[in-house]
Amino acid sequence: MAEGANKAKIAIVMGSQSDWPTMRCAAEVLQELGVESDVRIVSAHRTPDRMYDFARGAEAEGIRLIIAGAGGAAHLPGMLSALTHLPVLGVPVQSKALSGQDSLLSIVQMPAGIPTATFAIGEAGATNAGLYAAAILALGDPALTQRLKDWRAARTESVSERPEG
Amino acid sequence: MAEGANKAKIAIVMGSQSDWPTMRCAAEVLQELGVESDVRIVSAHRTPDRMYDFARGAEAEGIRLIIAGAGGAAHLPGMLSALTHLPVLGVPVQSKALSGQDSLLSIVQMPAGIPTATFAIGEAGATNAGLYAAAILALGDPALTQRLKDWRAARTESVSERPEG
Amino acid sequence: MAEGANKAKIAIVMGSQSDWPTMRCAAEVLQELGVESDVRIVSAHRTPDRMYDFARGAEAEGIRLIIAGAGGAAHLPGMLSALTHLPVLGVPVQSKALSGQDSLLSIVQMPAGIPTATFAIGEAGATNAGLYAAAILALGDPALTQRLKDWRAARTESVSERPEG
Amino acid sequence: MAEGANKAKIAIVMGSQSDWPTMRCAAEVLQELGVESDVRIVSAHRTPDRMYDFARGAEAEGIRLIIAGAGGAAHLPGMLSALTHLPVLGVPVQSKALSGQDSLLSIVQMPAGIPTATFAIGEAGATNAGLYAAAILALGDPALTQRLKDWRAARTESVSERPEG
Amino acid sequence: MAEGANKAKIAIVMGSQSDWPTMRCAAEVLQELGVESDVRIVSAHRTPDRMYDFARGAEAEGIRLIIAGAGGAAHLPGMLSALTHLPVLGVPVQSKALSGQDSLLSIVQMPAGIPTATFAIGEAGATNAGLYAAAILALGDPALTQRLKDWRAARTESVSERPEG
Amino acid sequence: MAEGANKAKIAIVMGSQSDWPTMRCAAEVLQELGVESDVRIVSAHRTPDRMYDFARGAEAEGIRLIIAGAGGAAHLPGMLSALTHLPVLGVPVQSKALSGQDSLLSIVQMPAGIPTATFAIGEAGATNAGLYAAAILALGDPALTQRLKDWRAARTESVSERPEG
Amino acid sequence: MAEGANKAKIAIVMGSQSDWPTMRCAAEVLQELGVESDVRIVSAHRTPDRMYDFARGAEAEGIRLIIAGAGGAAHLPGMLSALTHLPVLGVPVQSKALSGQDSLLSIVQMPAGIPTATFAIGEAGATNAGLYAAAILALGDPALTQRLKDWRAARTESVSERPEG
Amino acid sequence: MAEGANKAKIAIVMGSQSDWPTMRCAAEVLQELGVESDVRIVSAHRTPDRMYDFARGAEAEGIRLIIAGAGGAAHLPGMLSALTHLPVLGVPVQSKALSGQDSLLSIVQMPAGIPTATFAIGEAGATNAGLYAAAILALGDPALTQRLKDWRAARTESVSERPEG
Repeated sequence: MAEGANKAKIAIVMGSQSDWPTMRCAAEVLQELGVESDVRIVSAHRTPDRMYDFARGAEAEGIRLIIAGAGGAAHLPGMLSALTHLPVLGVPVQSKALSGQDSLLSIVQMPAGIPTATFAIGEAGATNAGLYAAAILALGDPALTQRLKDWRAARTESVSERPEG
Repeated sequence: MAEGANKAKIAIVMGSQSDWPTMRCAAEVLQELGVESDVRIVSAHRTPDRMYDFARGAEAEGIRLIIAGAGGAAHLPGMLSALTHLPVLGVPVQSKALSGQDSLLSIVQMPAGIPTATFAIGEAGATNAGLYAAAILALGDPALTQRLKDWRAARTESVSERPEG
Repeated sequence: MAEGANKAKIAIVMGSQSDWPTMRCAAEVLQELGVESDVRIVSAHRTPDRMYDFARGAEAEGIRLIIAGAGGAAHLPGMLSALTHLPVLGVPVQSKALSGQDSLLSIVQMPAGIPTATFAIGEAGATNAGLYAAAILALGDPALTQRLKDWRAARTESVSERPEG
Repeated sequence: MAEGANKAKIAIVMGSQSDWPTMRCAAEVLQELGVESDVRIVSAHRTPDRMYDFARGAEAEGIRLIIAGAGGAAHLPGMLSALTHLPVLGVPVQSKALSGQDSLLSIVQMPAGIPTATFAIGEAGATNAGLYAAAILALGDPALTQRLKDWRAARTESVSERPEG
Repeated sequence: MAEGANKAKIAIVMGSQSDWPTMRCAAEVLQELGVESDVRIVSAHRTPDRMYDFARGAEAEGIRLIIAGAGGAAHLPGMLSALTHLPVLGVPVQSKALSGQDSLLSIVQMPAGIPTATFAIGEAGATNAGLYAAAILALGDPALTQRLKDWRAARTESVSERPEG
Repeated sequence: MAEGANKAKIAIVMGSQSDWPTMRCAAEVLQELGVESDVRIVSAHRTPDRMYDFARGAEAEGIRLIIAGAGGAAHLPGMLSALTHLPVLGVPVQSKALSGQDSLLSIVQMPAGIPTATFAIGEAGATNAGLYAAAILALGDPALTQRLKDWRAARTESVSERPEG
Repeated sequence: MAEGANKAKIAIVMGSQSDWPTMRCAAEVLQELGVESDVRIVSAHRTPDRMYDFARGAEAEGIRLIIAGAGGAAHLPGMLSALTHLPVLGVPVQSKALSGQDSLLSIVQMPAGIPTATFAIGEAGATNAGLYAAAILALGDPALTQRLKDWRAARTESVSERPEG
Repeated sequence: MAEGANKAKIAIVMGSQSDWPTMRCAAEVLQELGVESDVRIVSAHRTPDRMYDFARGAEAEGIRLIIAGAGGAAHLPGMLSALTHLPVLGVPVQSKALSGQDSLLSIVQMPAGIPTATFAIGEAGATNAGLYAAAILALGDPALTQRLKDWRAARTESVSERPEG
């Protein structure tokens, strides 16, 4: 949990417990960057009232960005986008039969007027939603900007010149 | 508008005016069968409160079945299914870039617990949602059952023996 | 097996024994809701006469709804829809090579005039077909309506606030 | 085995009038090869009884091969294959929303035990079904074999050395 | 190996040893029906001369039907169809990355003039190609017709009334 | 061009002139919201040096967000994401042969570590990228927040109760 | 290695006249670069002997690279690759029903051992096959290298800074 | 490592260590053919500067051909093609969620003007990229031509007449 610069609250929500192995990648990368996040289960389909209350109260609660993961007919990210003007970052969770193609299209193909920022299917997408949320917060936070640059630089430096094995 | 046997109310809702050329096929076939329907625009994304109010009030309003059409990241049918126990019939409207493949997957791939009955992409699906709604109402309405059987028989009889031209 | 309110008969049919692990989800959720169902193997391709006899005799047999599961070039749900005016609920069973994409399109893309209500690929779809059948019967059965509402409410309440692990 | 030049009976059936512009390609190429064909509309969905009667009576009627075209959830070729041991040649008609991908999968992905020979989507497939039917009949008909070889040789010779324009 | 009625020779060819677990289903069902087949490896890509010699000599060798299986960019069935007027039955072998979608399209989407009869992806397709070949030969062979009808009847009778387990 | 609160610079870049009819939707919605944007052609493939210079100089130039549109093998959004830590919003332009499916996958399927926020294929996606950029800037700009809320409210109010025609 | 300006022989072959509007893009860009090409129709399916003779004689004829375009079940590029060790450049021509997805997979998914270099679907792919062929020849031709660099530089310079209209 | 005739340098680059099990197939087949290759990790996304330096310096370094493998939103092959006129051979590495369909489209669908030669998804594609690179070098190297012909002939001879098992 970082303090000071990164007071900004990021909520990470997901449709069910089964999305957590994917979505924890978002929480973890935010933690690496010293950015606080609040993790909850909010299901568009099973808990629509919870979803409404969460989305409608998010701004007042101090939440500034919402990372939302869901699979199959993944309605959570888009419905949150409909219910709040706060930026929503959607993560298509890999589904069983269609490998996340359904999740991806259900999240990314939003109609004009209600944007959801969409990331890759599965864990890469969750990590990237976390990084992207940090990059947004960094726009008003020089210290976080520096931590983000350092994180990226470290990744770059960690790339070997040649493959092993 | 039929009376008597078909007092049952069917709501036909759609995400936007642009879905109407598709969804009117549902209204028209119901009218052919003497079944009343009530047509509204209810957008999951642009009017989420209207959607909530509609879905939560539908049973009290006397609505028994909801036909819902939407395209792209089509969340309306599934969200209605989440908000009411009434049967929802979803129609994937043909989208521009992906020809309705996104609409279809966004509607049909619902998670266990929240069913949406899904029909074909486009006008055929809208017609069939209308027919299916009539078939459901016909379960408790012998006169409608007979009209439905007659409609089907007339369709069968209208098939020529050989193609022309 | 429920009695009284749920005298209505629901038939669950499938193309082969290999569809049973999927289709039993439909039977199980109906049982949870106290709704009787009758489970049979009816193959459009291997037993077309059985299919004809079943579909043509279903109404007289007291069947009101048919849940039909099939995979690959899945013709059973659509052919039943052609042979009876009773509502048919189709479940695309996940196929080996194409993960049920073939099953889904073979069931959902029915031409105007012959509707089949289609649900998600695999077990989620089978569960949902069961729930949807119950929701249809509940239209004329207040006790079942209450059980369905309770089932849904219990599902909603079972959703944790936060993921574990 | 046919007698004379074209006593052989090939039935060309299709689900609706709208399939005729595609399926006529089958009739035309058979005519070029001097093979008789009988063209009918037989809809699996709208006229299932006609389909049963046709398929079950085909052998007695003297039909030896059935070319069947259908689009969308295309069940006609596979159901004919289920109803008769005669070879069925399936043509996926190009559908509106999905360009025949649904037609193709509905026809080709038949389960083990009930084969349908499938050809390309649209007019090319219809022409090829006609040619293939002729090739089957030619197995017992040296004169037809010769006409088929000549037809193929003429096609080969008609290919220019260089493109024009 | 049957004799007498089924003197007709069917060749089963495939692109590589790795196709054999799939293609043996064709050989096995033919054996069940008492139809002789000759199994060979003929690769369009690695042994194009063998392919040419095989296809050009097939008729003289007494071969009447060719069942050809291949995966990925599957050119064997179509090239055989180009090289001989004998009927070719193509089996799309399930490929590693694309699950046979590439194999299917490479075989089925032949241009007008050069037909290849295509069957389902994988083992079901191989079994069905064998059955279809038998059905073609049965057109001129009453005893084989009877064996084929018996095989189909036995399959029909083997379908249980209800699923087990 | 707004001033004061929205000094923040948004760059809208695209791979070629042919992307402009799509990408102008981003510029237009930003203009409606009183947010300045700077529009340029920057091609990853034809002007890689311009792309490097642009991306590496963007932060110093005062740019805070980059909206990037491209079609086909769409590398521009992802390469910008690799070259700057500033948030990049990617718009898949509808391509000719594959309707933007290639564009979408090329943009959204970024590896962990290098996020690109992706929006819908075509004009809806461009509009939404503009809106999303405004929503990000609004996090630190109460006046823009209000304009965004007003814009959304006006959209909601503009939805008719019933379809016309 | 070519001499003079364009002694190098590149063959551009295609399956039919209908491929020429696409494939002429390859010829035109080669002409712009001062590289001679020889254009022919060679159909894998309709003229397999011509294909064999062409491929087997290409090296002796002085041909060093073969650009081959085909659509649908596109076997020409892969079969040429099987018949000659010369580098083959494959162009998937946009097909009617499947927009070239079938052409692409039929060309690119070659098995290990028989490579075909594949380019984009349609005109872009044909242009690029021409450019790539020139780049290969340029490896031994400094003058062509310079022309290629100039061509690329001119393309880069032609990109406007900002979109018009 | 070969010497003399095959002085030509081929670089094999890949986006990450995880691509090496695929890309080593390219290195191995080149080694079998006595062609030297230099293997490096060059990530478009994590090491864009390394990529620029590599691509811009490749010609001066004596590299004549670049084999580049990447998965998902695979930008490496296309960006190298943008940065150097040297021929680039792209290998789509099989990705987790989409089995390499994303990798393939991201590499093959390059716009006119910037060609990347694309090979099959996964190991077959890597092997073929190696073989193709050798075939290009062989154009100016008779000894390599002979080795390539021998390699191909050995492959042809290794194909059994009949499958085993």
